Amino acid sequence: MNYTRMSNEELIREKQALQNSYNEILGAKLSLDMSRGKPEKLQLDLSKEMLTVIDGNEACFSENGTDCRNYGIVDGIGEAKKLFGDILGVSPDNVIVGGNSSLNLMFDHLSRCMLFGVPGGNGPWCKNSKNKFLCPVPGYDRHFAVCETLGIEMINVPMTQNGPDMDIVEELVKDPDVRGIWCVPKFSNPDGTVYSDDTVRRFAKLEPASPDFIIMWDNAYCIHEIYEEEHPLLNIIDECAKAGNPDRAYVFTSTSKVTFPGAGVAAVASSVSNIKNILNVMKFQTIGHDKLNMLRHIKYFGNADGMRAYMKKHAEIMRPKFDMVLDTLSANLNDSGIATWSNPRGGYFVSLDVLEGCAKRTAKLCADAGVVLTGAGATFPYGIDPRDTNIRIAPSFASLADLETAMKVLCICAKLAAVEKLIKE
Amino acid sequence: MNYTRMSNEELIREKQALQNSYNEILGAKLSLDMSRGKPEKLQLDLSKEMLTVIDGNEACFSENGTDCRNYGIVDGIGEAKKLFGDILGVSPDNVIVGGNSSLNLMFDHLSRCMLFGVPGGNGPWCKNSKNKFLCPVPGYDRHFAVCETLGIEMINVPMTQNGPDMDIVEELVKDPDVRGIWCVPKFSNPDGTVYSDDTVRRFAKLEPASPDFIIMWDNAYCIHEIYEEEHPLLNIIDECAKAGNPDRAYVFTSTSKVTFPGAGVAAVASSVSNIKNILNVMKFQTIGHDKLNMLRHIKYFGNADGMRAYMKKHAEIMRPKFDMVLDTLSANLNDSGIATWSNPRGGYFVSLDVLEGCAKRTAKLCADAGVVLTGAGATFPYGIDPRDTNIRIAPSFASLADLETAMKVLCICAKLAAVEKLIKE
Repeated sequence: MNYTRMSNEELIREKQALQNSYNEILGAKLSLDMSRGKPEKLQLDLSKEMLTVIDGNEACFSENGTDCRNYGIVDGIGEAKKLFGDILGVSPDNVIVGGNSSLNLMFDHLSRCMLFGVPGGNGPWCKNSKNKFLCPVPGYDRHFAVCETLGIEMINVPMTQNGPDMDIVEELVKDPDVRGIWCVPKFSNPDGTVYSDDTVRRFAKLEPASPDFIIMWDNAYCIHEIYEEEHPLLNIIDECAKAGNPDRAYVFTSTSKVTFPGAGVAAVASSVSNIKNILNVMKFQTIGHDKLNMLRHIKYFGNADGMRAYMKKHAEIMRPKFDMVLDTLSANLNDSGIATWSNPRGGYFVSLDVLEGCAKRTAKLCADAGVVLTGAGATFPYGIDPRDTNIRIAPSFASLADLETAMKVLCICAKLAAVEKLIKE
Repeated sequence: MNYTRMSNEELIREKQALQNSYNEILGAKLSLDMSRGKPEKLQLDLSKEMLTVIDGNEACFSENGTDCRNYGIVDGIGEAKKLFGDILGVSPDNVIVGGNSSLNLMFDHLSRCMLFGVPGGNGPWCKNSKNKFLCPVPGYDRHFAVCETLGIEMINVPMTQNGPDMDIVEELVKDPDVRGIWCVPKFSNPDGTVYSDDTVRRFAKLEPASPDFIIMWDNAYCIHEIYEEEHPLLNIIDECAKAGNPDRAYVFTSTSKVTFPGAGVAAVASSVSNIKNILNVMKFQTIGHDKLNMLRHIKYFGNADGMRAYMKKHAEIMRPKFDMVLDTLSANLNDSGIATWSNPRGGYFVSLDVLEGCAKRTAKLCADAGVVLTGAGATFPYGIDPRDTNIRIAPSFASLADLETAMKVLCICAKLAAVEKLIKE
């Protein structure tokens, strides 16, 4: 039944039925969390063996004999650079391996832009009267928070099924205050989109007015396929080089959703020239990141193929959850006329668009019923979803049984909010 | 024999003798490193058990049940905050536990000052036409490098046996461009000085012209006694609070020289208000530092007393080295009239002052003979030792046998450089 075609009378009856269902849910006193892209315990348990793979003093040495317990090697041990290079399709020379957090690498990179500027650019961004960044929406709230913290004004760019709307991007970069763009190019957060080859090439060929323009390419889900088929992504660093813009893109990734979110290893990749420039500051920021943790990952996975093979275990835990989310949405909201959603093949999220003006109300109804979602609006800069329509579903943390309950609650709340909206007083 | 009282003829004869000794050393083709404060392998081997103390999935939980493998807790797990609080004499509420590097915490703190300013101050330092920092000399080259990288002008302050010359500090802070000072208050790098109670109190009571003024209190060697006796340091955070300047001091420390330099845990302590302000930015920089590594330290040491007791094992490795350095200096340079040196009771360094104008030449002679020292001048801002006199000796990394050789070489080189200087053409 399509709510948008119901008469007012039908809507009022439907509202009563939904309210009854909702009241039953309230009685169940739920406490379920679909708010963040956190792996569940079963996923963390998978990496148990990594905890003890460095089992004594003699296990602490890298391939070239470096004692990983001691100071030094700001760009990371060679085999870790190779591992991330292989995962990202670049040479080890294009890689810095950092600490446990790619967000930290991203924040620090934009901090460096603020304080020191970009090679070939117009100097420290903090000296500019205005700095703007393009933000494909819906997107990742922590990206937006970095910009907001640093005082970088954000401009929404709509997403399409092939990535950000490149017609709009090409237009917006004519503004000389626009210094860059955030991208999650594979299994984007939250809509699960994989950028098309054409999109990647158009990014590489962009002609921004600002010489500072950079692409913050957060490839967090680079090996996070959930179903069998592979989803190759064109290599942005190669494409930028081909297009004559070799220093444009900075690629970030981590093992936060491979081994441990709190104790993984993160990396940044870019042109050799950019990597040198980063190290020229980073070498004064730290004597070196945790090399023992790099070594743990190397000894545990062996190489990039080992890591890719291992990701299938994660996929087996994630797949039934994604199936559950998508099946529940289909069963409850198909043909309702009040919701559309993404159909991701990897990553950590499903993006749900409810009836315009109903996202906040839906999330509030869920919260009151004990089901916590990512805050409505969080997928937009400044927390403002102009159409109040987007809800990010994060299925990873809940058990399958809890997820089923939570999704049913969400569907009822989305319908109830929609009916409230559609009824004419 | 006091070189400064020798006749020119005696000096020429002595030079020939020293040159002969030096030529013998050249023939030995040495390769010895006294350049950095790196622990040697034996010290790293001490913490072997910590590597496997988290031995499976069930060992990954903190006291309050937090899964340390997963995301979250930007200020560190409670028991790690307590451990560092106990070591530094503050409440856990005054502590943030970070990643593996206190230098990183310091760099990031000054970056925040540049980008956001200091609570109660005049806004972002990057908007100021000039920023100055006081640097007690000789001091730590990596502190100076942070300032230089951030464009903060450095002003030398001479050290006394009680810490920085506070008469001079009190005078210099009347300059409204002076925004802070670097301090290594216990077993200072490189002279091993422990700041007196009076010095600490005068820091707390300083009346700087700039409301931005902060103290960067790098307590790297807080539990690094080498000999039996304890060297208590007055608590700067308490003293600042008593003096009505509760938000003045930021205290840094780490386990880099307790467990692993490359894989320890670092912390920053300050007033509760300052800690909140740091977290207000840090929470956008990272979702959390490596909690598993915090937990490793907790499980391995139990508590602060456990860590203190363990430091005696390090002292046993360090003590013969310091004895060797000091004995060799005494045996070779006592009454030479061309050198004075510190007599540290803890920390990682001995500070040697050779004849004025001879530090660079001495280091060069050593380097040519295969003995690498910290670069002469490195203990001063911009690498400029105005009197060219200071050499930092870092005895930790070399074996005792190598250290003996290296120290003998250093003494011959110091004498040779002095004699070259004293001979009148």
